[in-house]
Amino acid sequence: MKTREIAEFLNAELFGDGDVDIVRVAALESATKGEIAFVEKSGFEIATNAACLIVPHGFAQQTGAAQIAVPNPKLAFALVAGEVHPPKKRGAAIHPTAVIAETATIGKDVFIGAFVCVGENSIIGDNSQILAGTKIGDGVNVGGGSVLHPNVVIEDGCTLGDNVILHGGVVIGADGFGYVQDGRKTHHKFPQLGTVVIENNVEIGANTCIDRGALGETRIGMGTKIDNLVQIAHNVSIGKCVVIAAQTGISGSTVIEDDCVIGGQVGMGDHARVQSGAIIGSQAGVLPGKIVRPGVWWGTPVQPLDEYKRQNAHIKGLGRLKDDVKKLKKKLSE
Amino acid sequence: MKTREIAEFLNAELFGDGDVDIVRVAALESATKGEIAFVEKSGFEIATNAACLIVPHGFAQQTGAAQIAVPNPKLAFALVAGEVHPPKKRGAAIHPTAVIAETATIGKDVFIGAFVCVGENSIIGDNSQILAGTKIGDGVNVGGGSVLHPNVVIEDGCTLGDNVILHGGVVIGADGFGYVQDGRKTHHKFPQLGTVVIENNVEIGANTCIDRGALGETRIGMGTKIDNLVQIAHNVSIGKCVVIAAQTGISGSTVIEDDCVIGGQVGMGDHARVQSGAIIGSQAGVLPGKIVRPGVWWGTPVQPLDEYKRQNAHIKGLGRLKDDVKKLKKKLSE
Amino acid sequence: MKTREIAEFLNAELFGDGDVDIVRVAALESATKGEIAFVEKSGFEIATNAACLIVPHGFAQQTGAAQIAVPNPKLAFALVAGEVHPPKKRGAAIHPTAVIAETATIGKDVFIGAFVCVGENSIIGDNSQILAGTKIGDGVNVGGGSVLHPNVVIEDGCTLGDNVILHGGVVIGADGFGYVQDGRKTHHKFPQLGTVVIENNVEIGANTCIDRGALGETRIGMGTKIDNLVQIAHNVSIGKCVVIAAQTGISGSTVIEDDCVIGGQVGMGDHARVQSGAIIGSQAGVLPGKIVRPGVWWGTPVQPLDEYKRQNAHIKGLGRLKDDVKKLKKKLSE
Repeated sequence: MKTREIAEFLNAELFGDGDVDIVRVAALESATKGEIAFVEKSGFEIATNAACLIVPHGFAQQTGAAQIAVPNPKLAFALVAGEVHPPKKRGAAIHPTAVIAETATIGKDVFIGAFVCVGENSIIGDNSQILAGTKIGDGVNVGGGSVLHPNVVIEDGCTLGDNVILHGGVVIGADGFGYVQDGRKTHHKFPQLGTVVIENNVEIGANTCIDRGALGETRIGMGTKIDNLVQIAHNVSIGKCVVIAAQTGISGSTVIEDDCVIGGQVGMGDHARVQSGAIIGSQAGVLPGKIVRPGVWWGTPVQPLDEYKRQNAHIKGLGRLKDDVKKLKKKLSE
Repeated sequence: MKTREIAEFLNAELFGDGDVDIVRVAALESATKGEIAFVEKSGFEIATNAACLIVPHGFAQQTGAAQIAVPNPKLAFALVAGEVHPPKKRGAAIHPTAVIAETATIGKDVFIGAFVCVGENSIIGDNSQILAGTKIGDGVNVGGGSVLHPNVVIEDGCTLGDNVILHGGVVIGADGFGYVQDGRKTHHKFPQLGTVVIENNVEIGANTCIDRGALGETRIGMGTKIDNLVQIAHNVSIGKCVVIAAQTGISGSTVIEDDCVIGGQVGMGDHARVQSGAIIGSQAGVLPGKIVRPGVWWGTPVQPLDEYKRQNAHIKGLGRLKDDVKKLKKKLSE
Repeated sequence: MKTREIAEFLNAELFGDGDVDIVRVAALESATKGEIAFVEKSGFEIATNAACLIVPHGFAQQTGAAQIAVPNPKLAFALVAGEVHPPKKRGAAIHPTAVIAETATIGKDVFIGAFVCVGENSIIGDNSQILAGTKIGDGVNVGGGSVLHPNVVIEDGCTLGDNVILHGGVVIGADGFGYVQDGRKTHHKFPQLGTVVIENNVEIGANTCIDRGALGETRIGMGTKIDNLVQIAHNVSIGKCVVIAAQTGISGSTVIEDDCVIGGQVGMGDHARVQSGAIIGSQAGVLPGKIVRPGVWWGTPVQPLDEYKRQNAHIKGLGRLKDDVKKLKKKLSE
């Protein structure tokens, strides 16, 4: 792409040479000939050998690079990267080693890698890519344009939307963790007969687990992004455009509404509800049944960030407080 | 099953029509024609279209559904679900792509899926089902009636009992994490030559890891249930009928005695001992060598729940306490 | 090996019979005929049936076993175990089911198991062992003498050094977790075009995930050991001889310098830096951007261990402090 074409793609103003060939995106510090980088904010002295820079409006500095001015340079850079480096698209092919049930339906332009299984009555949508070693059970529906990385497991009856990305080792639809004790301390399996529904444009990180509903469904809403090694229990319902960082665990039947941001290593008890727009800091703990209102939350059990900070300050000041009380006691006894 | 047969199976009294066909279990709210649901406790107004209800003794409300009265409706429901929806049993078959060592012994009515490996001298017990992509090393013993979901890894020499369920991506018998430093900061591998023994009726969640013992064994006791993404280190010994929720990690040589309940994201140091009947809340931390007595424990480091609550109340009251001390100081200086 | 040979191998003094055959290493308590064990420290009464003991210099007790005196018995034992039980080495062979790209280069004496994939232009170094079900993408470079356990996933373009061990289910090179929001709450994927470099002698535990750099690389330094279920985000840089225990998560662009020791379930925010020689206790939390200096750190947010202990003592004493203030108020109002 030429710098001029990139500016047109971004519908943005170009300053400098429009005929420079851009072959790669790169970080500002390492960018060189043929590469485009971005400057997130004005006000810092920039040193770069990039051939082209995406800069914020009002960026005054000259660098020798062509500059494209936009309102949100990081977003523009991400969009340009998607053009310059389109996701690897394997050609339509079904590897001869793949084991595909006769009753399965494979869409157009689908890639199916080596050692993949697709079970009875399962459907793989057009343009999807199922990479090597992935195991898809019976009655599974994978939408169009989805990418399942190697060694993913999809258990029977689960549904994935369009443009879903599952990274390596993801397990969708394992039995939820539910037991009923009898009087003799034996744990009997509570039925785990439900399913998992993953809506369009969801991305799920490596080795993350999403259990099927016990009787109903576990649902991941449209556009939600989940990091690696996350645990989503049975009957959890996650809204649209939610972000969940790595190693967070969400217990059974908890609801996370649209647009929430959940940090890493957060733990949530069962039947909690995180209301739309709430932000929960890393390592926080949400008690079972808790309702988390919009705002920024922190700590275990979660509290508003302000309170958490005030409390932490109080704790840090405990030594002084103790000394004060000691002095008062002494003074008073005199 | 007819309602009458269900009542007989539960050895319980039936109120209403004994000839209704039940084809599915369902949640109370969504249940409809042909479905059976359960009411956990009396005292709530119920609205349901279920064809049959399992209710607690003394449940007075009429709903139009046939009712079966039992002491523990949730348990009865779980048992009925096991009859109405028996676990999927694949017919005896060995997929032609499976790679099975000539010295391996495969029992009767075993299902072995595509791309499974079974190593030298390994034994698969009668009625077991080894699903696609699972890799079983050399000298492994899998008992009868067990189900290994797709892409499980069992390393050499491990032993699984009867009716064990391993969900997708479980890794049994990886080397424990043990090193010895020399004087030059290099870490030398401590021998990881032991094994893993998993007793009968254990269920282990997706992507959970259970390391082999360094010199002895790592053992999971009969009837114990472990959730997803749990880490069990070398030489850990877990008793019978223990429940461990997701993302908990247990360090080397720690002992968890029978009937304990461990929440999610709990961390335990090495050489700790959790005594029979202890309950540890989610996100708790158990220090190395700690003995956790029976009772309910919470927090990091773990303390009895009462103390934890009292301490939390004290912390929440710190602002007021600080104000009080300020006032006292002022008063006294006057 | 005879006891004499072991003493020679350790370059250490032998007390007792040099002609005893040693066929196995064992734990002190269970060791018996033909087995060698070790005594970590003097000063405890030992009961063992071991045929040979590795003991610290100055160990005075007679046990009937031959004794080999060394400065660091645990290290010596680990080294002897490596001789007596060399790691299983599968003979050079490529399983007929493996799918290896024509453009891939396979070194000498390589073992490639069943259902392995090796992608275009990838290189497998001499003496490496790629076990069943492992999926290696395109342009991957695996050094010599490495062992990749079953069902590992290596995405395109990653580099592994010599003598690297990856346990079952490890995922190397999945996309990092980076998105840019537009004004309508949609998350656009930030480019994840970088790579992962794993240096020589690194060992990585089961189901651990190491994401590729967004634009640069994620790097794991020489001799570093990482436990199971650990999350390493994009662009993290880990130095040499670092130890990271299970279930720890390290956010994007964080740097851990050489020789650090990180406990289990630790969480680190992004762009933090842990300086060489720092030790961070289990379940600790490091805030984004934090610099952790050498020393021992504990808690969330991390603080020096001494402060953490003092603070915990203060918190434990809060009930008493509250009582004191109450008494003072009463006294003063009288």
